[in-house]
Amino acid sequence: MSIYAQCEQAYKASKALAVLPASQRNAALDAMATAIRSNIASLLLANQHDQIAGKQAGLSKALIDRLALTGPRLEVLADSLSLIASLPDPLGKTIDGWTQPNGLVISKQRVPIGVVAIIYEARPNVTADAIALCIKTGNAVVLRGSSMCEQSNKALASVLKTAAIAHGVSGDAIQLLEDVSRDGIDELVKMRQFLSVVIPRGGHALIQRVVTSSLVPTIETGVGNCHIFIDDSADLNQAIPLVLNAKTQRPSVCNACETVLIHQDIASAFLPLLAAALVKEGVEIRGCPQTKQLLPDTTLAEESDWATEFLDLVLAIKVVASVEEAIDHIHRYGTHHSESILSNNKRHIDRFVAHVDAAAVLVNASTRFVDGGEFGFGAELGISTQKLHVRGPMGLEALTSYKYIVQGDGHIRG
Amino acid sequence: MSIYAQCEQAYKASKALAVLPASQRNAALDAMATAIRSNIASLLLANQHDQIAGKQAGLSKALIDRLALTGPRLEVLADSLSLIASLPDPLGKTIDGWTQPNGLVISKQRVPIGVVAIIYEARPNVTADAIALCIKTGNAVVLRGSSMCEQSNKALASVLKTAAIAHGVSGDAIQLLEDVSRDGIDELVKMRQFLSVVIPRGGHALIQRVVTSSLVPTIETGVGNCHIFIDDSADLNQAIPLVLNAKTQRPSVCNACETVLIHQDIASAFLPLLAAALVKEGVEIRGCPQTKQLLPDTTLAEESDWATEFLDLVLAIKVVASVEEAIDHIHRYGTHHSESILSNNKRHIDRFVAHVDAAAVLVNASTRFVDGGEFGFGAELGISTQKLHVRGPMGLEALTSYKYIVQGDGHIRG
Repeated sequence: MSIYAQCEQAYKASKALAVLPASQRNAALDAMATAIRSNIASLLLANQHDQIAGKQAGLSKALIDRLALTGPRLEVLADSLSLIASLPDPLGKTIDGWTQPNGLVISKQRVPIGVVAIIYEARPNVTADAIALCIKTGNAVVLRGSSMCEQSNKALASVLKTAAIAHGVSGDAIQLLEDVSRDGIDELVKMRQFLSVVIPRGGHALIQRVVTSSLVPTIETGVGNCHIFIDDSADLNQAIPLVLNAKTQRPSVCNACETVLIHQDIASAFLPLLAAALVKEGVEIRGCPQTKQLLPDTTLAEESDWATEFLDLVLAIKVVASVEEAIDHIHRYGTHHSESILSNNKRHIDRFVAHVDAAAVLVNASTRFVDGGEFGFGAELGISTQKLHVRGPMGLEALTSYKYIVQGDGHIRG
Repeated sequence: MSIYAQCEQAYKASKALAVLPASQRNAALDAMATAIRSNIASLLLANQHDQIAGKQAGLSKALIDRLALTGPRLEVLADSLSLIASLPDPLGKTIDGWTQPNGLVISKQRVPIGVVAIIYEARPNVTADAIALCIKTGNAVVLRGSSMCEQSNKALASVLKTAAIAHGVSGDAIQLLEDVSRDGIDELVKMRQFLSVVIPRGGHALIQRVVTSSLVPTIETGVGNCHIFIDDSADLNQAIPLVLNAKTQRPSVCNACETVLIHQDIASAFLPLLAAALVKEGVEIRGCPQTKQLLPDTTLAEESDWATEFLDLVLAIKVVASVEEAIDHIHRYGTHHSESILSNNKRHIDRFVAHVDAAAVLVNASTRFVDGGEFGFGAELGISTQKLHVRGPMGLEALTSYKYIVQGDGHIRG
């Protein structure tokens, strides 16, 4: 079937799905979790085909591992679908309401977005995750996965679709694109008449390609060049474990810290202690000239280091004269993701919080907390780095819109 | 100066503007209103140049009237700036807040979007309006007006900028593009590194051009093919004035009614009365075959009429068998703008409200109420027909985003 036809089917099916009661949507999700558990053998078999094809195509070991399904991985996936089923229904809530002086009663209610397209890389777990999040939020979904996962994605989508249909969800509401060619993405992002949003999930290149070519509104997630500013008033006993946590707990993720800014008044006393702790954990330091003076063994940072999301055990360190210089540095090099200040000076904290333009500004806390799970959102759709619609960690409401309901009694406008 | 340089200046200036207190932003707005009143002569002179050039270029009388400024029009403009100054500050509000089990205190605060670009047609009032709305919401603004209004826009922007600067707003926060060539739009909508949103204001062609070519997120306003469904249980005494209001009060606007759907059980009794009232007001009716049977003088509607936003004294009328058929018709031809049901049958009302996918669903009220002013929003930025970020009438909050503030005490992630 063509991309057009698949998107059109999803659009038509989205109407009935939008008004399906929460009980049915949740029952469908529970059935999907059960279906994964009872189809493990066939899902693993389909995945074996992808792994064999991947090896023949010369994929790296890391890429093969990324697309590989195992029994335990499928259990984790099934558990996450059950969890999504158990979350509160995001739909139907009255968000706001008031009565106009003329007696019109206006209310604002949460509704599904419509059709959500998700473009992602060779990770079959995203197939199940995306379907579940969309069904939970009453949205039809169009999935464009990687050709490297074609068999796994087909098997997963088929198993989940069958389970959903048994609970009154139209199978047309779940569309896995049959066309997995590169050109398919370009065609998909033109389907303005059917799609309400396109969400790319994956690496920087994929995200940039989608957000800059899409005619459909997108939700951009992506680069986190996150900073920690250690003020002269910071609790230095807290600072070392906190920087270690932000840098080393999971260096490959977007909320890991990439640059530490240190107030000059504490640099000579504190930097050697911090550096020793970092080096012990295998972190390579790239420092400004002042840092290099205090830590002669350190590599001198190049201009590009301040702008780099290392996603690795590398940390840039810069000595700054004031909270204002820290803010200026973050304005220049930051990516509006997550920025932290360690301080006990109320004026400095207030200034940092007010002036730093980021999805999340943290005070005396690790940047690693900027995450849907850590925010208590239950489900995590990614972390938005854009300012429209949703910013920062995305919960289920990121996949909803609203409508106004205006109740009159024969009202005409004067 | 280049478009790039102007956008970069706006971006840099947006940082200070974002933290300017409301008192200063409002003082700047009041000063702008005063500045318009005290520069009427020079503003009218600049506008004369545009009018003369327009006449020489052969612009229609309607277009010349649209770009013409007069003393009274400038007074209205100044009043609208004073009104915007008096509205509550949309910034700094805590929208949400909670404490996580680990003690992290998370709050969500309203902040400016950053830099807003507005692309519009030959209406100099939009220049002042857009500047005021952006300054009110703490955003820097990049304006791309029409070359046909070049002198008026320059004069207005200069007067408003001078007033703003006197109250601590950087002049760089208000950028009127010097390049008013057609290619300028294409360049402007690529400035992802500086602009947070691009808003086209004007006709359908301009809006479609911007939303389909922009690399920067856009807010789409636009077509309203709005319906009124008159159920068999409707109060027919209310129905005639209500349809007349929705069709004839201001036929050229997006929330005017374009098609009436009538339940078959009341069609023969009610249609002749409705038609007589419409024809008396100069409305041309285009009817379905059943309508034509009841009203032999009526033009038979073509398929394209159901999908047309007439923006004129033309109304399509269709007889339907049920509320379900009305909903199906709206799904097929509607533009998700404003849809109304006249009914006293709770089941029909509930079904219509739940199933119709529109920014606003009205019950026993004219579609003309879907408007920022009628919703009590104070300022009207247009009516969004998209589902992300903002939907329906847009108040000041449409020009804001939010940030999370996460307060810890040395918290590290486990």
